[in-house]
Amino acid sequence: MKKILTAIFSAAVSIAAAQNQPSENLVQYVRPIIGTQRMGHVYPGATVPFGMVQLSPETDTASYDLNGHYNPDVYKYCAGYQYDDKTIVGFSHTHFSGTGHSDLGDFLVMPTVGPLKLNPGTADKPGSGYRSAFSHDNEVSAANYYKVKLDASGIIAEMTTTTRVGFHQYTFPKSDNAHIILDLMAGIYNYPDKNLWVYLRRINDSTVAGYRITNGWARTRTLYFAMTFNKPFTQMGYKNFSKREVYGGFWGKFNGVKNFPDVAGRQIKVWFDFKTSQDEKIKIKMALSPVSIEGALNNMQTEAPGWDFDKVKNDGQQQWETELHKIVIEGSKDDKENFYTSMYHAMINPTVYMDADGNYKGLDQGIHHADGFTNYTTFSLWDTHRALHPLFNIIETKRNADIAQSMLAHFDQSPEHMLPIWSNSANENWCMSGFHSVSVLADAIIKGNAPFDANKALDAAITTANHRDYEGIGYFNDMGYIPDEKDGNSVSSTLEYAYDDWCIAQIAKKLNRTADYDTFIKRSQNWKNVFDPKSGFMHPKLADGTFRPTKFDPFTTIGMGFIEGNAWNYTLYVPHDVPGLIKAMGGNKRFVTYVDSLFSYNLPDKYFAETEDITKDGIIGNYVHGNEPSHQIAYMYDWTDKPWKTQDKIRMILKKMYKNTPDGLGGNDDTGQMSAWYIFSALGFYPVAPGSDQYATGSPSVYHAVLNLENGKTFTINTKNQSDKNVYVQKILLNGQVLSGYFISHSDIMNGGEITFVMGPKHKG
Amino acid sequence: MKKILTAIFSAAVSIAAAQNQPSENLVQYVRPIIGTQRMGHVYPGATVPFGMVQLSPETDTASYDLNGHYNPDVYKYCAGYQYDDKTIVGFSHTHFSGTGHSDLGDFLVMPTVGPLKLNPGTADKPGSGYRSAFSHDNEVSAANYYKVKLDASGIIAEMTTTTRVGFHQYTFPKSDNAHIILDLMAGIYNYPDKNLWVYLRRINDSTVAGYRITNGWARTRTLYFAMTFNKPFTQMGYKNFSKREVYGGFWGKFNGVKNFPDVAGRQIKVWFDFKTSQDEKIKIKMALSPVSIEGALNNMQTEAPGWDFDKVKNDGQQQWETELHKIVIEGSKDDKENFYTSMYHAMINPTVYMDADGNYKGLDQGIHHADGFTNYTTFSLWDTHRALHPLFNIIETKRNADIAQSMLAHFDQSPEHMLPIWSNSANENWCMSGFHSVSVLADAIIKGNAPFDANKALDAAITTANHRDYEGIGYFNDMGYIPDEKDGNSVSSTLEYAYDDWCIAQIAKKLNRTADYDTFIKRSQNWKNVFDPKSGFMHPKLADGTFRPTKFDPFTTIGMGFIEGNAWNYTLYVPHDVPGLIKAMGGNKRFVTYVDSLFSYNLPDKYFAETEDITKDGIIGNYVHGNEPSHQIAYMYDWTDKPWKTQDKIRMILKKMYKNTPDGLGGNDDTGQMSAWYIFSALGFYPVAPGSDQYATGSPSVYHAVLNLENGKTFTINTKNQSDKNVYVQKILLNGQVLSGYFISHSDIMNGGEITFVMGPKHKG
Repeated sequence: MKKILTAIFSAAVSIAAAQNQPSENLVQYVRPIIGTQRMGHVYPGATVPFGMVQLSPETDTASYDLNGHYNPDVYKYCAGYQYDDKTIVGFSHTHFSGTGHSDLGDFLVMPTVGPLKLNPGTADKPGSGYRSAFSHDNEVSAANYYKVKLDASGIIAEMTTTTRVGFHQYTFPKSDNAHIILDLMAGIYNYPDKNLWVYLRRINDSTVAGYRITNGWARTRTLYFAMTFNKPFTQMGYKNFSKREVYGGFWGKFNGVKNFPDVAGRQIKVWFDFKTSQDEKIKIKMALSPVSIEGALNNMQTEAPGWDFDKVKNDGQQQWETELHKIVIEGSKDDKENFYTSMYHAMINPTVYMDADGNYKGLDQGIHHADGFTNYTTFSLWDTHRALHPLFNIIETKRNADIAQSMLAHFDQSPEHMLPIWSNSANENWCMSGFHSVSVLADAIIKGNAPFDANKALDAAITTANHRDYEGIGYFNDMGYIPDEKDGNSVSSTLEYAYDDWCIAQIAKKLNRTADYDTFIKRSQNWKNVFDPKSGFMHPKLADGTFRPTKFDPFTTIGMGFIEGNAWNYTLYVPHDVPGLIKAMGGNKRFVTYVDSLFSYNLPDKYFAETEDITKDGIIGNYVHGNEPSHQIAYMYDWTDKPWKTQDKIRMILKKMYKNTPDGLGGNDDTGQMSAWYIFSALGFYPVAPGSDQYATGSPSVYHAVLNLENGKTFTINTKNQSDKNVYVQKILLNGQVLSGYFISHSDIMNGGEITFVMGPKHKG
Repeated sequence: MKKILTAIFSAAVSIAAAQNQPSENLVQYVRPIIGTQRMGHVYPGATVPFGMVQLSPETDTASYDLNGHYNPDVYKYCAGYQYDDKTIVGFSHTHFSGTGHSDLGDFLVMPTVGPLKLNPGTADKPGSGYRSAFSHDNEVSAANYYKVKLDASGIIAEMTTTTRVGFHQYTFPKSDNAHIILDLMAGIYNYPDKNLWVYLRRINDSTVAGYRITNGWARTRTLYFAMTFNKPFTQMGYKNFSKREVYGGFWGKFNGVKNFPDVAGRQIKVWFDFKTSQDEKIKIKMALSPVSIEGALNNMQTEAPGWDFDKVKNDGQQQWETELHKIVIEGSKDDKENFYTSMYHAMINPTVYMDADGNYKGLDQGIHHADGFTNYTTFSLWDTHRALHPLFNIIETKRNADIAQSMLAHFDQSPEHMLPIWSNSANENWCMSGFHSVSVLADAIIKGNAPFDANKALDAAITTANHRDYEGIGYFNDMGYIPDEKDGNSVSSTLEYAYDDWCIAQIAKKLNRTADYDTFIKRSQNWKNVFDPKSGFMHPKLADGTFRPTKFDPFTTIGMGFIEGNAWNYTLYVPHDVPGLIKAMGGNKRFVTYVDSLFSYNLPDKYFAETEDITKDGIIGNYVHGNEPSHQIAYMYDWTDKPWKTQDKIRMILKKMYKNTPDGLGGNDDTGQMSAWYIFSALGFYPVAPGSDQYATGSPSVYHAVLNLENGKTFTINTKNQSDKNVYVQKILLNGQVLSGYFISHSDIMNGGEITFVMGPKHKG
């Protein structure tokens, strides 16, 4: 029965894809609420694919409140929403998706009725401020649509977005005392003095505009806005919470603070008053711009000129349909919810970072125009180079090329003359290690997705890799490793630089730049310099060339030379030379035993509190799936005589780490990397070494999938005898031919065709 | 002998003017040091006419120092320099000229040798920081040139400017430990948190650029800079004095703080190290921009591409020569120093506020392009509408029209939809009262100097005058006066609005907009509503229409309804209807007695401490020349039967209030208004009511003057029997015809020709 259905469905999809008429609504399977409980750090609110606006509720924000009270749980509130919370503070327009860092939460809007309260109050006493209790029973979280009932007021809050505009719709009770609060002080991880300055001016009786300058994850960031209501406010007011207003006297020449023409200060809150009839809808459009107030006004006019909430919602959901239909799978409802929520999470970042007219702010603090590409920001590259950008090179080729161009623009504008590390909103924050934008560039160039100047990309990569002052690069280049005395992450950085330099070598090879190839392929072998054959682990090495003699603990993530990982996991981080690693580690058998032990050893509890990003949720044995450095490990059996161990591990990880429940993510989604891992693995293959055109196969969990490629071709994944128990691959047919080995190439996919996994309950060999 | 010389000199000037070859260097008479002692609030440093850069030494700055010590003498340090001080803190690039408000002082540069000190230290212990003792013996202060020897280091500091670039030249001793400190925290009236943010990046080994955002007199102001040295620094470093650097860890990934690629923070100081040989010159160019770093770099390249200090100095001094030659006078060296220093001070403000490419920041916080005009800022209009802009309508017609256009652009961009009050750097600070930009517009339009849309100007003026929410305008328009209960300056604002509305009526009349004329000419008579015939003074009036019965003190500036003036002076402030005022005050005889008493009554000491801007230096009897509301008074005798009283008063004021010594100014120069009063009065006439084409004559102090007009014509002022004692005008000949009465018109001047004042020791009548 299953098989017949599969065949019928498969045919339907193929026809639908050919006619560009999706046969099934896939948005229905997107559940943004997945991962909002515990440490997924995603948000339940509304956004369009790669949108600049992420309009979502805050349940708390790890902020100082007006009474000086501080909620110190910064890590928990990275996305501003925790499923277990009982109150909502308001709805803000910017959110990171799945990061391990708290920031954003700009321009918090909250509708209220009754006496005006400007303090959010505390969660245990929601009546103490403008925050409201809510229930998940009265909450809808969907792609580009969020709805909730605010118990305090009875207001129904709905929101949707365009790329650059947040669209609110609040259904009020009858009230002579209805308010919209715009809290320009609020923010996620809103430490003191994060707000450098706020400016707002009234344009007319229903529109205001302004900006806020913040010092946060983006060191110096100005976000402009324009906010318009569907009906005039009866009055507006502000309160300045700054302790000192030096020239307040002069600025106060207008009658009081009501209906003021403009206001500026460090700590400003603004409110708008309305009289509402029963069930009257107050609608708000909030447009953002990284460039100017004028840019924000123009973005609003361009993207959301009218007041039809449903149209904006539907247009955005149609964008999601288009993106989701790039991979049409067959599976259970649970599978589809996991898969399409993963697709959704994978297509939030990077985010568009330019106005509708193509202007954007650069790292040189100047305004630039994006000629011939869309400029993006929010590059969490230590995470996303692994699987997210490779995924884009299959199903988002145009966008990934634009992302590469954005990186090259970043390089041009960077005061440091470096490609991005972790960049956001025209700022580089240098978070994590390596310089993995070179991996993204290499993967695009090697895979033929480089409608940009590849030689320029190589030059930028080489300049970045030769930035001797940056985090041990000089030592790495001179000595072949980073001495332990010089850097706390000496071993992991040595491993990451080795991989990055291998990526550069791949570009050089493709461009026939032999001297560059020779230099970088040599450096790519530097991982060998930190492998200690005696202990069998990657190990901190001293400047004198000896391994550090102090007690070595392969389980701890602290003080052993690794960033966010232990030696046991990181030792396997040589994605570009797995055969070399196997050899160094003593050959096939020893290697298999080592990887086995990773999954079977139970990490003692004492190690869990060490690193925020590594929680029990994301660990299987001692294998850390919840953080990125191990993401290739389960596929490494493909290089041994036990590829079936990849297959059962993958199916186990898919099941254990991804569930369609609020607590369903095993760790931070990390701007889509965790989700990209899921998508690849569910389809049956994975890019172990981005920059190579090779994918290692695993064990697909889908029953069937069609990849609708931008080049007009389709690549179909078929399975036979697929089931939860039949996790072992018996045979792989590529376009009808039996595949020898366990690897496929990028061109196998992009040329179109089909792959068939014949599954069974027992492993081969 | 005098007469013969005069004739020869006069002929020489005429020929010179015709050939554009000045016969005498006039820059030699400019002594910027005049007014730097006591409360003139001018600065001794370098600037070109109306330049964006004012590069001048700070001797102290009324700031909090790094130890939290605060020098509270804010008013004294408006221009950052006090002649009596013994130490120099450094050289900064922006200064107000003669304001009663402390601000600016951006980008303080100080050269030092020896151990690096980043704290300026205190004046009593100059060795405690980077400040240095200096002597006026080693100081040269000239137009566009300042030089001083810094005793602490032996360094000779020289500076000059272009419109947008400050050019430093420091002659060092031999040193292996020479520094240039760039103190980005320093500022004039540098209260805590004035620095909102500072950003700096290294462009190469001899150039840095960045910006600073401040919250000062301009509420939200970003000033960009580019700074380049004539030789590479050996290294650079920074120190961040902020208490908290949230993400310092990530930003610190580069090796230490030396030669950092960029830095940002609230409280940053930067230094550059050099090795210098004996007498080696380290030169610096610091370009400013209100728009962007790119704008600053372009300004530098456009205006000062090379390193020839003397050429930049000479080019700027040639600009001054051109401006100064617009009025060529004959007189003693003292007279010329007073006159040309006044000309110099009158031609500093307003200041150019746009990049070399025409881009500037607007009050809407957006970037605009000035099409067909030069954009200006620094509008201290309560002061300058009285005589400075009328002076410009004679000798700076093109510039004054550009200033008017800048005001109209201000109106377009103003969130309040108002013309400027006191605006600076794309901000309105609402300082002082009235809306006297309408006077500037009216004066230009009435005098035929309006190459802009006069109807648009009238619309803007009317909109401004009808801004009911603004400081009592609604009451004024409805009730004919501002009730004392509603505004602390109800009387002076009523008087000022009456004059401003008269100005609007004059425009309306010229444009044949009869209804508007009727409205505003009616309002212009509202001064009558606050004149109390019983007391004989302008008097606070209550909402019920009665005069305030509480004790009335005509000498105090506090609590009597006037801003920066007492009733005795302000009662005479009806510049647009002197005959009406005379009538109201009881006719000719009573009026003359009243004005006489103003000059003869000795104001008791107790009144001097009341208002900062009114000091003993600027007072004659009870007549306050040091502040503006009385500036027309001495000319009002021209409307009585005692015009000779104007003549001796003017000569007395010229002598008492203007001296060519450091303490030579009787009060704040107020961005040129005090100087413009001097220039007009020295020439023998004055614009009592700007917006009228009429000038009241006084008693010229010059022996001879030629006005070289932009229309190619010349207007010559001759005197006969002129001397310090012959202050009384016996006869006035206009183009050879005896003038009946004591008034001339604007066209009399602009049509070219000559006026001859026949002087004598005794007054007529």
